[in-house]
Amino acid sequence: MKFLRYEYHHDISSGVLSQGEVKKISGDYLGTWTYTGDSYSLEEVKLLSPISPNKIIGIGANFVQELAELPKEPADIPVFFFKPSTSVIGPKDEIIIPQGINEVKFESELAIVIGKTCKHIQADNALDYVFGYTIGNDITAPQFFREDGHWTIGKAFDTFTPIGPFIETDIELSALYVKSEVNGIEKQNSSTNLMIMSVKEIIAYLSNVMTLLPGDVILTGSPIGAEFVGAGNIIECKIDEIGILQNTVIKS
Amino acid sequence: MKFLRYEYHHDISSGVLSQGEVKKISGDYLGTWTYTGDSYSLEEVKLLSPISPNKIIGIGANFVQELAELPKEPADIPVFFFKPSTSVIGPKDEIIIPQGINEVKFESELAIVIGKTCKHIQADNALDYVFGYTIGNDITAPQFFREDGHWTIGKAFDTFTPIGPFIETDIELSALYVKSEVNGIEKQNSSTNLMIMSVKEIIAYLSNVMTLLPGDVILTGSPIGAEFVGAGNIIECKIDEIGILQNTVIKS
Repeated sequence: MKFLRYEYHHDISSGVLSQGEVKKISGDYLGTWTYTGDSYSLEEVKLLSPISPNKIIGIGANFVQELAELPKEPADIPVFFFKPSTSVIGPKDEIIIPQGINEVKFESELAIVIGKTCKHIQADNALDYVFGYTIGNDITAPQFFREDGHWTIGKAFDTFTPIGPFIETDIELSALYVKSEVNGIEKQNSSTNLMIMSVKEIIAYLSNVMTLLPGDVILTGSPIGAEFVGAGNIIECKIDEIGILQNTVIKS
Repeated sequence: MKFLRYEYHHDISSGVLSQGEVKKISGDYLGTWTYTGDSYSLEEVKLLSPISPNKIIGIGANFVQELAELPKEPADIPVFFFKPSTSVIGPKDEIIIPQGINEVKFESELAIVIGKTCKHIQADNALDYVFGYTIGNDITAPQFFREDGHWTIGKAFDTFTPIGPFIETDIELSALYVKSEVNGIEKQNSSTNLMIMSVKEIIAYLSNVMTLLPGDVILTGSPIGAEFVGAGNIIECKIDEIGILQNTVIKS
Protein backbone atom coordinates (compact mmCIF):
# COMPACT_ATOMS: atom_id res chain seq x y z
CA MET A 1 0.00 0.00 0.00
CA LYS A 2 1.33 3.46 -0.89
CA PHE A 3 0.69 6.27 1.60
CA LEU A 4 1.23 9.94 0.79
CA ARG A 5 0.57 13.46 2.04
CA TYR A 6 -0.74 16.19 -0.20
CA GLU A 7 -2.02 19.72 -0.35
CA TYR A 8 -5.32 20.46 -2.06
CA HIS A 9 -6.79 23.97 -1.96
CA HIS A 10 -4.49 24.88 0.98
CA ASP A 11 -5.59 21.88 3.06
CA ILE A 12 -2.99 19.27 3.98
CA SER A 13 -4.25 15.68 4.07
CA SER A 14 -3.02 12.11 3.95
CA GLY A 15 -4.07 9.58 1.36
CA VAL A 16 -3.50 6.26 -0.30
CA LEU A 17 -2.42 5.90 -3.92
CA SER A 18 -4.72 3.35 -5.49
CA GLN A 19 -5.00 2.63 -9.22
CA GLY A 20 -3.35 5.96 -9.98
CA GLU A 21 -5.80 7.91 -7.80
CA VAL A 22 -5.28 9.65 -4.47
CA LYS A 23 -7.87 8.35 -2.00
CA LYS A 24 -8.15 10.71 0.98
CA ILE A 25 -7.95 9.22 4.47
CA SER A 26 -8.72 10.64 7.89
CA GLY A 27 -6.78 9.73 11.00
CA ASP A 28 -3.10 8.86 11.24
CA TYR A 29 -1.79 6.29 8.79
CA LEU A 30 0.77 5.25 11.40
CA GLY A 31 -2.13 4.34 13.67
CA THR A 32 -5.84 4.12 12.86
CA TRP A 33 -7.36 5.66 9.76
CA THR A 34 -10.32 5.34 7.39
CA TYR A 35 -11.08 6.36 3.82
CA THR A 36 -13.16 9.54 3.65
CA GLY A 37 -14.60 8.64 0.25
CA ASP A 38 -12.97 11.65 -1.47
CA SER A 39 -10.53 10.98 -4.26
CA TYR A 40 -8.38 13.05 -6.62
CA SER A 41 -6.13 12.53 -9.57
CA LEU A 42 -2.39 12.94 -8.92
CA GLU A 43 -2.47 16.04 -11.15
CA GLU A 44 -5.02 17.79 -8.94
CA VAL A 45 -2.94 17.69 -5.75
CA LYS A 46 0.50 18.92 -4.72
CA LEU A 47 2.40 16.01 -3.21
CA LEU A 48 4.22 16.79 0.04
CA SER A 49 6.86 14.81 1.87
CA PRO A 50 4.85 11.69 2.84
CA ILE A 51 6.10 12.00 6.42
CA SER A 52 6.90 14.90 8.73
CA PRO A 53 9.65 13.18 10.71
CA ASN A 54 10.71 13.84 14.25
CA LYS A 55 14.19 12.34 13.84
CA ILE A 56 16.05 11.89 10.57
CA ILE A 57 19.12 9.69 10.89
CA GLY A 58 21.51 9.01 8.04
CA ILE A 59 24.24 6.44 7.67
CA GLY A 60 27.45 7.39 5.91
CA ALA A 61 29.24 5.41 3.20
CA ASN A 62 27.06 2.30 3.38
CA PHE A 63 27.38 0.98 -0.20
CA VAL A 64 30.18 -0.84 -1.97
CA GLN A 65 30.53 -1.07 -5.75
CA GLU A 66 30.47 -4.86 -5.96
CA LEU A 67 29.71 -7.77 -3.67
CA ALA A 68 33.37 -8.78 -3.37
CA GLU A 69 34.08 -5.49 -1.58
CA LEU A 70 31.62 -6.13 1.24
CA PRO A 71 33.46 -6.20 4.59
CA LYS A 72 32.92 -9.32 6.71
CA GLU A 73 31.91 -7.16 9.67
CA PRO A 74 30.48 -3.65 9.80
CA ALA A 75 32.56 -1.02 11.59
CA ASP A 76 32.52 -1.06 15.41
CA ILE A 77 31.07 2.43 15.35
CA PRO A 78 29.41 3.06 11.97
CA VAL A 79 29.10 6.70 10.86
CA PHE A 80 25.63 8.06 11.56
CA PHE A 81 24.44 11.65 11.47
CA PHE A 82 21.26 13.59 12.15
CA LYS A 83 19.50 15.89 9.69
CA PRO A 84 17.04 18.45 11.06
CA SER A 85 13.31 18.26 10.27
CA THR A 86 13.58 21.78 8.84
CA SER A 87 15.64 20.33 5.97
CA VAL A 88 12.72 18.24 4.65
CA ILE A 89 11.02 19.11 1.37
CA GLY A 90 8.61 17.15 -0.81
CA PRO A 91 8.50 15.99 -4.42
CA LYS A 92 8.98 18.81 -6.97
CA ASP A 93 10.11 21.26 -4.28
CA GLU A 94 13.33 23.09 -5.08
CA ILE A 95 16.70 22.28 -3.55
CA ILE A 96 18.35 25.61 -2.73
CA ILE A 97 22.13 25.92 -2.99
CA PRO A 98 23.38 27.82 0.10
CA GLN A 99 24.97 31.22 -0.28
CA GLY A 100 28.71 31.17 -0.92
CA ILE A 101 28.84 27.94 -2.92
CA ASN A 102 27.78 26.92 -6.43
CA GLU A 103 26.92 23.25 -6.19
CA VAL A 104 25.69 20.56 -3.83
CA LYS A 105 25.91 16.78 -3.83
CA PHE A 106 22.85 14.55 -4.22
CA GLU A 107 22.53 11.01 -2.86
CA SER A 108 19.57 8.77 -3.69
CA GLU A 109 18.68 6.53 -0.74
CA LEU A 110 16.18 3.98 0.48
CA ALA A 111 14.51 5.56 3.52
CA ILE A 112 13.03 3.51 6.36
CA VAL A 113 9.92 4.87 8.09
CA ILE A 114 9.64 3.51 11.64
CA GLY A 115 6.15 2.31 12.60
CA LYS A 116 6.46 1.27 16.24
CA THR A 117 8.51 2.53 19.18
CA CYS A 118 11.64 0.41 19.41
CA LYS A 119 14.48 0.25 21.90
CA HIS A 120 17.18 -2.41 22.36
CA ILE A 121 15.89 -4.71 19.63
CA GLN A 122 17.77 -7.41 17.74
CA ALA A 123 18.29 -7.48 13.98
CA ASP A 124 16.21 -10.64 13.64
CA ASN A 125 12.95 -8.89 14.52
CA ALA A 126 13.88 -5.36 13.43
CA LEU A 127 11.57 -5.40 10.40
CA ASP A 128 8.55 -5.77 12.74
CA TYR A 129 9.12 -2.13 13.69
CA VAL A 130 9.11 -0.77 10.14
CA PHE A 131 6.01 0.97 8.79
CA GLY A 132 7.26 1.24 5.24
CA TYR A 133 9.88 2.60 2.89
CA THR A 134 10.22 5.79 0.90
CA ILE A 135 13.01 7.55 -1.00
CA GLY A 136 15.31 10.17 0.48
CA ASN A 137 17.77 12.46 -1.26
CA ASP A 138 20.54 13.23 1.20
CA ILE A 139 21.69 16.58 -0.16
CA THR A 140 25.07 17.61 1.17
CA ALA A 141 27.36 20.62 0.90
CA PRO A 142 30.76 19.07 1.72
CA GLN A 143 32.21 22.56 1.34
CA PHE A 144 30.95 23.06 4.91
CA PHE A 145 32.50 19.87 6.31
CA ARG A 146 35.31 20.50 8.75
CA GLU A 147 38.65 18.83 8.20
CA ASP A 148 38.37 17.22 11.64
CA GLY A 149 35.37 15.22 10.44
CA HIS A 150 32.38 17.23 11.67
CA TRP A 151 29.67 17.11 9.02
CA THR A 152 26.65 18.61 10.77
CA ILE A 153 26.36 22.00 9.07
CA GLY A 154 27.06 20.59 5.60
CA LYS A 155 23.96 18.39 5.81
CA ALA A 156 21.64 20.69 7.78
CA PHE A 157 20.61 23.42 5.35
CA ASP A 158 16.92 23.97 4.61
CA THR A 159 15.74 21.95 1.54
CA PHE A 160 18.58 19.40 1.97
CA THR A 161 16.33 16.39 2.59
CA PRO A 162 13.81 15.75 -0.19
CA ILE A 163 11.58 12.81 0.82
CA GLY A 164 8.91 10.99 -1.18
CA PRO A 165 6.84 10.55 -3.18
CA PHE A 166 5.12 7.66 -1.36
CA ILE A 167 5.63 5.34 1.61
CA GLU A 168 5.32 1.77 0.34
CA THR A 169 4.35 -0.65 3.11
CA ASP A 170 4.59 -3.88 1.09
CA ILE A 171 8.05 -4.35 -0.29
CA GLU A 172 10.60 -7.13 -0.79
CA LEU A 173 13.86 -5.62 0.45
CA SER A 174 16.24 -8.08 -1.17
CA ALA A 175 15.44 -7.12 -4.74
CA LEU A 176 15.49 -3.32 -4.55
CA TYR A 177 17.56 -1.11 -6.83
CA VAL A 178 18.37 2.40 -5.63
CA LYS A 179 18.75 4.65 -8.67
CA SER A 180 19.17 8.26 -9.67
CA GLU A 181 19.22 10.34 -12.82
CA VAL A 182 20.44 13.88 -13.42
CA ASN A 183 18.67 15.52 -16.36
CA GLY A 184 17.61 12.07 -17.56
CA ILE A 185 21.10 10.51 -17.42
CA GLU A 186 21.51 7.59 -15.02
CA LYS A 187 24.03 8.22 -12.23
CA GLN A 188 23.25 5.57 -9.62
CA ASN A 189 21.80 2.08 -9.92
CA SER A 190 22.75 -0.41 -7.21
CA SER A 191 21.04 -3.28 -5.47
CA THR A 192 20.43 -3.06 -1.74
CA ASN A 193 22.56 -6.25 -1.61
CA LEU A 194 25.53 -3.88 -1.84
CA MET A 195 24.72 -2.24 1.50
CA ILE A 196 27.39 -2.81 4.15
CA MET A 197 24.89 -2.62 7.01
CA SER A 198 21.51 -4.10 6.10
CA VAL A 199 18.20 -2.46 6.97
CA LYS A 200 17.78 -4.89 9.88
CA GLU A 201 21.26 -4.22 11.21
CA ILE A 202 20.85 -0.45 10.96
CA ILE A 203 17.59 -0.46 12.93
CA ALA A 204 18.96 -2.81 15.59
CA TYR A 205 22.17 -0.79 15.99
CA LEU A 206 20.36 2.54 16.31
CA SER A 207 17.69 1.13 18.67
CA ASN A 208 20.48 0.13 21.03
CA VAL A 209 21.57 3.76 21.20
CA MET A 210 18.30 5.69 21.12
CA THR A 211 14.58 5.03 21.19
CA LEU A 212 13.19 5.07 17.66
CA LEU A 213 9.68 6.51 17.44
CA PRO A 214 6.87 6.06 14.91
CA GLY A 215 7.55 8.43 12.02
CA ASP A 216 11.33 8.55 12.50
CA VAL A 217 13.15 8.28 9.17
CA ILE A 218 16.44 6.47 8.58
CA LEU A 219 18.39 7.11 5.37
CA THR A 220 20.24 3.90 4.57
CA GLY A 221 23.15 5.26 2.53
CA SER A 222 23.69 5.98 -1.13
CA PRO A 223 25.12 3.83 -3.94
CA ILE A 224 28.31 4.69 -5.78
CA GLY A 225 27.77 7.43 -8.35
CA ALA A 226 26.55 10.50 -6.45
CA GLU A 227 27.83 13.73 -7.93
CA PHE A 228 27.88 17.48 -7.49
CA VAL A 229 25.12 19.39 -9.25
CA GLY A 230 24.57 23.09 -9.86
CA ALA A 231 21.54 25.29 -10.44
CA GLY A 232 19.12 24.13 -13.11
CA ASN A 233 19.81 20.42 -12.76
CA ILE A 234 16.88 18.07 -12.28
CA ILE A 235 17.54 15.14 -9.95
CA GLU A 236 15.36 12.05 -9.99
CA CYS A 237 15.85 9.53 -7.21
CA LYS A 238 14.11 6.33 -8.09
CA ILE A 239 13.19 2.98 -6.58
CA ASP A 240 10.81 1.21 -8.96
CA GLU A 241 8.67 -0.29 -6.21
CA ILE A 242 8.19 3.14 -4.57
CA GLY A 243 8.25 5.86 -7.21
CA ILE A 244 10.31 8.79 -8.46
CA LEU A 245 11.39 11.68 -6.25
CA GLN A 246 12.09 14.60 -8.57
CA ASN A 247 13.60 17.93 -7.44
CA THR A 248 15.28 20.79 -9.23
CA VAL A 249 18.34 22.59 -7.90
CA ILE A 250 18.28 26.40 -7.76
CA LYS A 251 20.56 29.19 -6.49
CA SER A 252 19.51 30.96 -3.29
CA MET B 1 9.32 35.02 34.47
CA LYS B 2 10.08 31.33 35.04
CA PHE B 3 8.12 28.80 32.95
CA LEU B 4 8.09 25.07 33.68
CA ARG B 5 6.35 21.81 32.83
CA TYR B 6 5.24 19.36 35.45
CA GLU B 7 3.33 16.20 36.10
CA TYR B 8 0.63 16.11 38.75
CA HIS B 9 -1.52 13.01 39.24
CA HIS B 10 -0.48 11.74 35.75
CA ASP B 11 -1.49 14.97 34.01
CA ILE B 12 1.22 16.99 32.26
CA SER B 13 0.80 20.76 32.43
CA SER B 14 2.74 23.97 32.05
CA GLY B 15 3.09 26.56 34.74
CA VAL B 16 4.84 29.65 36.03
CA LEU B 17 7.02 29.63 39.14
CA SER B 18 5.92 32.58 41.26
CA GLN B 19 6.96 33.22 44.86
CA GLY B 20 7.99 29.59 45.19
CA GLU B 21 4.64 28.29 43.94
CA VAL B 22 3.73 26.58 40.66
CA LYS B 23 0.86 28.48 39.07
CA LYS B 24 -0.81 26.34 36.40
CA ILE B 25 -1.38 27.86 32.97
CA SER B 26 -3.45 26.77 29.99
CA GLY B 27 -2.41 27.33 26.39
CA ASP B 28 1.13 27.41 25.02
CA TYR B 29 3.65 29.55 26.87
CA LEU B 30 5.45 30.12 23.55
CA GLY B 31 2.24 31.72 22.26
CA THR B 32 -0.88 32.68 24.17
CA TRP B 33 -1.69 31.39 27.63
CA THR B 34 -3.64 32.27 30.77
CA TYR B 35 -3.49 31.32 34.42
CA THR B 36 -6.05 28.66 35.34
CA GLY B 37 -6.17 29.72 38.99
CA ASP B 38 -4.76 26.38 40.24
CA SER B 39 -1.49 26.42 42.12
CA TYR B 40 0.76 23.86 43.78
CA SER B 41 3.87 23.78 45.90
CA LEU B 42 7.06 22.61 44.15
CA GLU B 43 7.00 19.53 46.40
CA GLU B 44 3.58 18.43 45.12
CA VAL B 45 4.58 18.19 41.44
CA LYS B 46 7.18 16.28 39.47
CA LEU B 47 9.11 18.77 37.33
CA LEU B 48 9.64 17.73 33.70
CA SER B 49 11.96 19.14 31.08
CA PRO B 50 10.47 22.66 30.68
CA ILE B 51 10.45 22.21 26.90
CA SER B 52 9.88 19.29 24.56
CA PRO B 53 12.19 20.45 21.77
CA ASN B 54 11.98 19.70 18.09
CA LYS B 55 15.65 20.42 17.38
CA ILE B 56 18.46 20.34 19.91
CA ILE B 57 21.68 21.83 18.61
CA GLY B 58 24.92 21.90 20.57
CA ILE B 59 28.11 23.81 19.98
CA GLY B 60 31.43 22.14 20.72
CA ALA B 61 34.36 23.59 22.67
CA ASN B 62 32.93 27.09 23.08
CA PHE B 63 34.59 28.19 26.34
CA VAL B 64 38.12 29.33 27.11
CA GLN B 65 39.65 29.34 30.58
CA GLU B 66 40.46 33.04 30.69
CA LEU B 67 39.70 36.14 28.65
CA ALA B 68 43.22 36.36 27.19
CA GLU B 69 42.63 33.06 25.37
CA LEU B 70 39.61 34.31 23.43
CA PRO B 71 40.31 34.11 19.67
CA LYS B 72 39.85 37.33 17.71
CA GLU B 73 37.54 35.54 15.28
CA PRO B 74 35.42 32.41 15.72
CA ALA B 75 36.23 29.45 13.47
CA ASP B 76 35.04 29.61 9.86
CA ILE B 77 32.95 26.51 10.47
CA PRO B 78 32.34 26.15 14.20
CA VAL B 79 31.60 22.62 15.47
CA PHE B 80 27.87 22.05 15.92
CA PHE B 81 26.02 18.80 16.50
CA PHE B 82 22.44 17.60 16.88
CA LYS B 83 21.08 15.66 19.82
CA PRO B 84 17.82 13.73 19.36
CA SER B 85 14.65 14.68 21.25
CA THR B 86 14.58 11.14 22.65
CA SER B 87 17.69 12.02 24.70
CA VAL B 88 15.83 14.64 26.77
CA ILE B 89 15.05 14.04 30.44
CA GLY B 90 13.90 16.40 33.18
CA PRO B 91 15.15 17.42 36.61
CA LYS B 92 15.76 14.51 39.01
CA ASP B 93 15.46 11.94 36.18
CA GLU B 94 18.30 9.44 36.02
CA ILE B 95 21.15 9.56 33.51
CA ILE B 96 21.71 5.99 32.34
CA ILE B 97 25.25 4.86 31.45
CA PRO B 98 25.04 2.85 28.20
CA GLN B 99 25.90 -0.82 28.18
CA GLY B 100 29.58 -1.58 27.64
CA ILE B 101 31.01 1.46 29.40
CA ASN B 102 31.31 2.57 33.03
CA GLU B 103 31.22 6.34 32.93
CA VAL B 104 29.93 9.32 30.98
CA LYS B 105 30.97 12.96 30.77
CA PHE B 106 28.72 15.78 32.01
CA GLU B 107 28.75 19.35 30.68
CA SER B 108 26.75 22.14 32.30
CA GLU B 109 25.49 24.61 29.68
CA LEU B 110 23.35 27.67 29.20
CA ALA B 111 20.53 26.59 26.87
CA ILE B 112 18.74 29.02 24.55
CA VAL B 113 15.03 28.41 23.89
CA ILE B 114 13.97 29.91 20.57
CA GLY B 115 10.69 31.86 20.67
CA LYS B 116 10.10 32.95 17.08
CA THR B 117 10.82 31.38 13.70
CA CYS B 118 14.12 32.79 12.44
CA LYS B 119 16.04 32.42 9.22
CA HIS B 120 18.96 34.45 7.87
CA ILE B 121 19.09 36.88 10.80
CA GLN B 122 21.97 39.05 11.92
CA ALA B 123 23.62 38.88 15.33
CA ASP B 124 22.48 42.41 16.18
CA ASN B 125 18.82 41.43 16.39
CA ALA B 126 19.25 37.74 17.26
CA LEU B 127 18.05 38.17 20.85
CA ASP B 128 14.62 39.26 19.54
CA TYR B 129 14.07 35.60 18.59
CA VAL B 130 14.85 34.17 22.02
CA PHE B 131 12.01 33.08 24.29
CA GLY B 132 14.20 32.43 27.30
CA TYR B 133 17.06 30.45 28.79
CA THR B 134 17.31 27.22 30.70
CA ILE B 135 20.09 24.82 31.70
CA GLY B 136 21.21 21.83 29.68
CA ASN B 137 23.54 19.01 30.67
CA ASP B 138 25.21 17.74 27.51
CA ILE B 139 25.95 14.17 28.56
CA THR B 140 28.48 12.49 26.31
CA ALA B 141 30.04 9.04 25.97
CA PRO B 142 33.28 9.88 24.10
CA GLN B 143 34.00 6.14 24.13
CA PHE B 144 31.64 6.06 21.14
CA PHE B 145 33.33 8.88 19.23
CA ARG B 146 35.06 7.76 16.06
CA GLU B 147 38.69 8.68 15.52
CA ASP B 148 37.71 10.42 12.28
CA GLY B 149 35.71 12.98 14.24
CA HIS B 150 32.14 11.68 14.07
CA TRP B 151 30.47 12.29 17.42
CA THR B 152 26.81 11.51 16.73
CA ILE B 153 26.31 8.20 18.54
CA GLY B 154 28.33 9.32 21.56
CA LYS B 155 25.88 12.14 22.26
CA ALA B 156 22.63 10.45 21.16
CA PHE B 157 21.82 7.91 23.89
CA ASP B 158 18.50 8.15 25.72
CA THR B 159 18.77 10.26 28.94
CA PHE B 160 21.82 12.15 27.58
CA THR B 161 20.18 15.60 27.57
CA PRO B 162 18.83 16.68 30.96
CA ILE B 163 17.09 20.06 30.58
CA GLY B 164 15.61 22.34 33.22
CA PRO B 165 14.39 23.15 35.75
CA PHE B 166 12.86 26.41 34.46
CA ILE B 167 12.94 28.64 31.39
CA GLU B 168 13.78 32.15 32.57
CA THR B 169 12.56 34.82 30.15
CA ASP B 170 14.09 37.85 31.89
CA ILE B 171 17.82 37.54 32.13
CA GLU B 172 20.94 39.66 31.75
CA LEU B 173 23.27 37.54 29.62
CA SER B 174 26.49 39.39 30.36
CA ALA B 175 26.62 38.51 34.04
CA LEU B 176 25.79 34.78 33.97
CA TYR B 177 27.94 32.12 35.56
CA VAL B 178 27.59 28.55 34.29
CA LYS B 179 28.38 26.17 37.15
CA SER B 180 28.30 22.52 38.09
CA GLU B 181 28.86 20.39 41.15
CA VAL B 182 29.42 16.64 41.46
CA ASN B 183 28.31 15.31 44.86
CA GLY B 184 28.45 18.86 46.20
CA ILE B 185 31.97 19.65 44.96
CA GLU B 186 32.26 22.49 42.45
CA LYS B 187 33.59 21.43 39.04
CA GLN B 188 32.64 24.28 36.71
CA ASN B 189 32.14 27.99 37.31
CA SER B 190 32.74 30.30 34.36
CA SER B 191 31.22 33.54 33.15
CA THR B 192 29.48 33.59 29.78
CA ASN B 193 32.10 36.23 28.90
CA LEU B 194 34.43 33.28 28.30
CA MET B 195 32.30 31.98 25.43
CA ILE B 196 34.08 32.05 22.05
CA MET B 197 30.84 32.50 20.10
CA SER B 198 28.31 34.63 21.96
CA VAL B 199 24.62 33.76 22.20
CA LYS B 200 23.87 36.33 19.48
CA GLU B 201 26.55 34.96 17.17
CA ILE B 202 25.44 31.36 17.66
CA ILE B 203 21.81 32.14 16.78
CA ALA B 204 22.79 34.22 13.76
CA TYR B 205 25.19 31.58 12.46
CA LEU B 206 22.70 28.73 12.81
CA SER B 207 19.83 30.76 11.35
CA ASN B 208 21.90 31.22 8.21
CA VAL B 209 22.07 27.43 7.84
CA MET B 210 18.66 26.25 8.97
CA THR B 211 15.32 27.69 10.02
CA LEU B 212 15.10 27.85 13.80
CA LEU B 213 11.60 27.18 15.14
CA PRO B 214 9.86 28.13 18.38
CA GLY B 215 10.86 25.58 20.99
CA ASP B 216 14.20 24.68 19.40
CA VAL B 217 16.95 24.44 22.01
CA ILE B 218 20.58 25.48 21.51
CA LEU B 219 23.22 24.31 24.00
CA THR B 220 25.88 27.02 24.07
CA GLY B 221 28.90 25.00 25.17
CA SER B 222 30.37 24.07 28.52
CA PRO B 223 33.02 25.78 30.68
CA ILE B 224 36.36 24.18 31.49
CA GLY B 225 36.05 21.53 34.20
CA ALA B 226 33.70 18.86 32.85
CA GLU B 227 34.64 15.38 33.98
CA PHE B 228 33.75 11.74 33.68
CA VAL B 229 31.30 10.41 36.27
CA GLY B 230 30.18 6.89 37.13
CA ALA B 231 27.08 5.37 38.69
CA GLY B 232 25.91 6.92 41.94
CA ASN B 233 27.24 10.40 41.26
CA ILE B 234 24.87 13.35 41.60
CA ILE B 235 25.40 16.14 39.09
CA GLU B 236 24.07 19.62 39.69
CA CYS B 237 24.19 22.07 36.81
CA LYS B 238 23.54 25.56 38.08
CA ILE B 239 22.94 29.06 36.81
CA ASP B 240 21.84 31.22 39.75
CA GLU B 241 19.32 33.23 37.72
CA ILE B 242 17.65 30.03 36.41
CA GLY B 243 17.94 27.28 39.02
CA ILE B 244 19.60 23.94 39.67
CA LEU B 245 19.32 20.95 37.34
CA GLN B 246 20.04 17.87 39.44
CA ASN B 247 20.38 14.36 38.02
CA THR B 248 21.87 11.13 39.31
CA VAL B 249 23.93 8.77 37.16
CA ILE B 250 23.02 5.06 37.17
CA LYS B 251 24.13 1.90 35.36
CA SER B 252 21.80 0.52 32.72
